[in-house]
Parts: sequence; C-alpha cells; structure tokens
Amino acid sequence: MFELRKDPLLGRWTITAKDDTKKLSDYDLDPFIPKDKSCTFCPGAENKTTKEIMTVKDKETGKWLTRVIPNRIPILRIEGNINRQGVGMYDKMNGIGANEIIIESPEHTRWPEDIGASQMEKVLTTYGERIIDLEKDSRLRYVLIFKSYGEASGATMEHPHSQLIATPVTPKRIKEELDGAKNYFSIKERCIFCDIIKEEQKTGLRVVVENKDFIAFCPFAQIFPFETWLLPKRHNCAFQDVDDSEIASLASILTDILNRIKSVLNNPSYNYSLHTAPNRMPRKGHWFTLMDDFHWHIEIIPKLKMVTGFELSSGFFVIYTPPEESAEYLRGEY
Amino acid sequence: MFELRKDPLLGRWTITAKDDTKKLSDYDLDPFIPKDKSCTFCPGAENKTTKEIMTVKDKETGKWLTRVIPNRIPILRIEGNINRQGVGMYDKMNGIGANEIIIESPEHTRWPEDIGASQMEKVLTTYGERIIDLEKDSRLRYVLIFKSYGEASGATMEHPHSQLIATPVTPKRIKEELDGAKNYFSIKERCIFCDIIKEEQKTGLRVVVENKDFIAFCPFAQIFPFETWLLPKRHNCAFQDVDDSEIASLASILTDILNRIKSVLNNPSYNYSLHTAPNRMPRKGHWFTLMDDFHWHIEIIPKLKMVTGFELSSGFFVIYTPPEESAEYLRGEY
Repeated sequence: MFELRKDPLLGRWTITAKDDTKKLSDYDLDPFIPKDKSCTFCPGAENKTTKEIMTVKDKETGKWLTRVIPNRIPILRIEGNINRQGVGMYDKMNGIGANEIIIESPEHTRWPEDIGASQMEKVLTTYGERIIDLEKDSRLRYVLIFKSYGEASGATMEHPHSQLIATPVTPKRIKEELDGAKNYFSIKERCIFCDIIKEEQKTGLRVVVENKDFIAFCPFAQIFPFETWLLPKRHNCAFQDVDDSEIASLASILTDILNRIKSVLNNPSYNYSLHTAPNRMPRKGHWFTLMDDFHWHIEIIPKLKMVTGFELSSGFFVIYTPPEESAEYLRGEY
Repeated sequence: MFELRKDPLLGRWTITAKDDTKKLSDYDLDPFIPKDKSCTFCPGAENKTTKEIMTVKDKETGKWLTRVIPNRIPILRIEGNINRQGVGMYDKMNGIGANEIIIESPEHTRWPEDIGASQMEKVLTTYGERIIDLEKDSRLRYVLIFKSYGEASGATMEHPHSQLIATPVTPKRIKEELDGAKNYFSIKERCIFCDIIKEEQKTGLRVVVENKDFIAFCPFAQIFPFETWLLPKRHNCAFQDVDDSEIASLASILTDILNRIKSVLNNPSYNYSLHTAPNRMPRKGHWFTLMDDFHWHIEIIPKLKMVTGFELSSGFFVIYTPPEESAEYLRGEY
C-alpha cells in the first residue's frame, strides 16, 4: 500500500510505500569497483591537467591531499560578459560561470570516506575556500558543489573527485528551496529546516545518526530510496561560514553516513550535493546579509534506481521503501 | 561553447551547446531489441491479467487491438477515501487514484509505430476514452498517460504498452506548466503555446515535421538531447476534445516522429507523456470551462543519457547537441 506525502519545502507530493514493498535485494545493488590504474588526476600527472587553482597540502610531506583544477571541457567559463539577450520570443545569455574539478584524494581507489575523517576535513575545507573565492565575482549568483561516485551516478572519471559549477542565475531547484523556505518563514517566522530538525528529533523515526553539531535523517517525502539529508543543528545559511570545530564534526558524520550507505547498500553509486545560500552577500565585511529563512545542508542520494518516465514527466516521485525503513537499515537495525 | 537558454514556460535555465559538441556517436546508441516470447500481455493470456477495463476491437475479426487493465501492483488505488491529514509538521493523504496499463498492440514485438498509423489511432482513441472516464471521478485532479519504451526508459514489461496514473493532486511538473502558461497569459493575453508555434514556424530552425493539424519541434531550452514536442495547431486545452479528423492526423505525425527517432538514433529507449488540462471541468455538459491559457501536447524524450548528479541537484540541465542540430538530424538533413 502507498500513501501520498508532501515535501514541506518544495510543495511536491510523493507516492510513498507504507511498508517495505521492495526488499533491499530488489534494488540494483551492483557494487562500484574502481579499476586501479594511473589517470590524469593521480599524483605524477599534475602537468597533464589544466592549470591548478588551489591545493591543500600535507604539512609534513608537502604532498597534495586535495587539488582543484578547471574542468578540461568546462560547461561554463569565467571569461567574457553575460550579455543577456532576446532571440525571438526566447531569452538567452552567454555561458559565463565556473566549472571546476575538486580532486578529493591522491589515491585513485580510496575515497575520503575510505581514508577517514581527516581527509574528509581537507575536502570540506577545499569546498569552503572555493565558494569564498567565487562568491566575490559579482556576475555569479550561485556555487553548486556536487559529487558523483560510480557509473550509475553519471561520473565519467573514476578518481575520487567532486565538481563545482558556479552559475550566473540561481538554479531552479535551489530557487524552489529558497522560495519554499521563505514562504514558510513568512507564515511561521521560523526557519523550516530548524523546525524539521526538531520534528525529526522528536519522533526519531527517520534519524540515521546524530552528533553534537549535525543530524542526518531520511526526509519525510524522499524522492529516491535511502535519500539522506545532513543538516547543521546551528541555524546557518551558508556552508562557508562553518567554524573549525564544526568542520571536524561534519567530516566525522559525513564519513560515517557514506560508510553506512556503502555497507548497507553494497557500495552503490551515489550523488551528494551541497545546498548553501546564494552568492552576493558580503558576510564578514562591514555589513551582513544573513538569511533567517535558509539553512545550508547536504543531500545524499544512493543511485539504486533510475528516474522513471512517470517521475520525469510528472515530477511525482515513487518510493517503494519508506524513509522510516531506510533509516532503520542505515541505523543497522535490520 | 555553451550558452544559457531560458525555458519560457517553466522559467528554467538550461546550459546548451552552441555547436555540435557531441556527435551522434558519442551518445549511448544501444538499440532496444525485444525478445519474442509469450507474456501475460499477449493474446491468449487474457485470463492471467487483472480484470479488463476496456478494449478496442477489430471490427472484422473481433480480436482486440488495444486493451486496458489495472496495474497488477498499482501505486494508487481507486478504492477508499482521500483522508488528508497532518502527521507532526508534515502532510499526507491516502494513495487514492488509478494506475492502468494500456496494452498498445496484440503483438509482443511490434509497436504501434511499427504497425502504422491505423494502430496508433486506436491507441490514441483508447487514451482519450480513459481520460473521459476518469475525469468523472471528482476525487481525481489529473490523468497522466506516459509510455516507456526499452530498458533505459524504465519499462519493466517488454510488450508494447503505456501507463496511466490518475492522481488526487496535480503533479508538480504539470502545475509548473499551468502556472507558467497562466503567468504568460496574464501579461500577453495570448496562449504561450500558440506563440511558441508561431515562433517555431517563423524561424523553422527547430521544426522536425508539420502536417495540417500538428507541428513537432525540438524546444528552444531542451532538457534532453533530441527531446521533441508535438502540439496541435488549433488552440485546445484538452486532448480528449480532439475530433476524429485530428486523431487521424495525430496518429500519422506521431508514427512519423517515432520512426524518425528510431531510425536516426538507432532504435533508442524513449519516453513520451501526454500533457493535457487538469480534471474537474465539465466540458460537454451545460457549462464549459475551457482554458485559454493551456494547450495540450505530447513531450517525447529519447533516453540517450541519464540524469546527472548536477542536473538532479540543481534542476539545471546540460545539452551537448543544440535543438537546432537535433532537429536537422530528425529532418534527415545530416
């Protein structure tokens, strides 16, 4: 049996199984097994990549731990003018923006979650520094960082990496989140994400894991089975404003969640994406624009199924394993 | 090089190649080859399916040409009450609706587009009759009919079929279309789809094929390569209001487009979906509610690529073959 559930943020209804309609074994649980071979992202091939933007180095050995380079075939470029224009009844603009690759590990087959929280901390620090740098560019409205792990996630390079795409307009999905959060705030005068955290803590049904600063849960109206959201407990709109102790805490819980997903779901392909506030907000200068109504977070989606024809054409997603059960699996209670 | 293009209906920006960044051969052009075997949708196995809802029969032989049955494991059911309710801060309702299978051909390996326009006409007539029947149910707000052809489309049965899902709320993607069309109408006092048809006819750049009553083109801000839209030239909000001569004309152009896609793209998996006006509008009784601002249409998407992590998390789609070039391919000019 199924029920309809409404995503309180996006106003999107989903069709969610009331019980465990699909057993874990009904999903596509082919493990992602990377080939151990040299590639242009591996140490030693640094001169074969595009010009390095930044690195985080090991203080003792001087070797790089993370490395940021422009995408070889960028979908958006930093050079040029935006040049918004009409074409007949339509609108277009130049492909201005940024498209960077964040190499997350010097090792071809070991991801930050395999190496441990210390490596994950370097990756998260790299994310923050790139956002801080790019949000100075007044042409750019948003910096989206996302990771594709394994073939089914859409990754085309095996070596552990994330991508950064900075855009001159706020992406539609992010805009919908901002609008949903703003609408909620205008009625309740409270952050919807803060309220969701309290609701999830109260029932505990969908919580996967919690630490001092962060909470991870399967959202009430998931769009993919085992989808997990990771939120800071402190209200904060911008990822790049986290402090050092929070970064350590985040590295530890993100490593934990990814390893739970890998262990329970047989090392699946996955995507995660960092949802932070839009650019153009001088935060540490003379004036601030902190948003009371937005709360940065990470959305993690194991790729156990493709988007179906119905989901694609309707925006109505179907979930065969309810989030309450996926949370139980991820808590290790099955 | 890429440019940003805005979908005038949904307000969604896309990143679209300015030239043919990806050659046809760069896409996943694995042909879909069905196995010729007996299945429960084949003639002779009628007693193995759920109870038949309707059939269209051959007038001479009396054998069925199309057949509609409830989905064996329906994601929404017709029985019961909607029962909207709160659960903590969230909202949910019972899974009321309908989920039907439209068997499109008695033959396991020949689709309507392979058999020809006369079979396609039967399929389209079946779609219309099911919508007319279901929109009488005042609990249902929308009837979505979509087709999944081939493995990459998400189809789980090989035998030619479409699915119908009727929902007690308007699906988000459809709601966005309705809202976009309404906003445009409120400014221009013209149907956005009628304007798009005129714009496409004027430039001809993206037109694939046209006949007396219909036009097919690749939309300006595609979200998938070779995505094609099929619209009636006559303003009409509801598919079920087409007349007999339009149905014949539609059957012929839809057969043509699907065969072009199959021939140019090496018989790919594809999805199409029928976007018609929402339910609850008595159209042929004493009063009418025709919508000036909505225009029914069919969206066809060959599945040459999966939705990437970036597209999923941002709603920002990336197109490596511009619609002007995909239209050239589909017109047979390459």
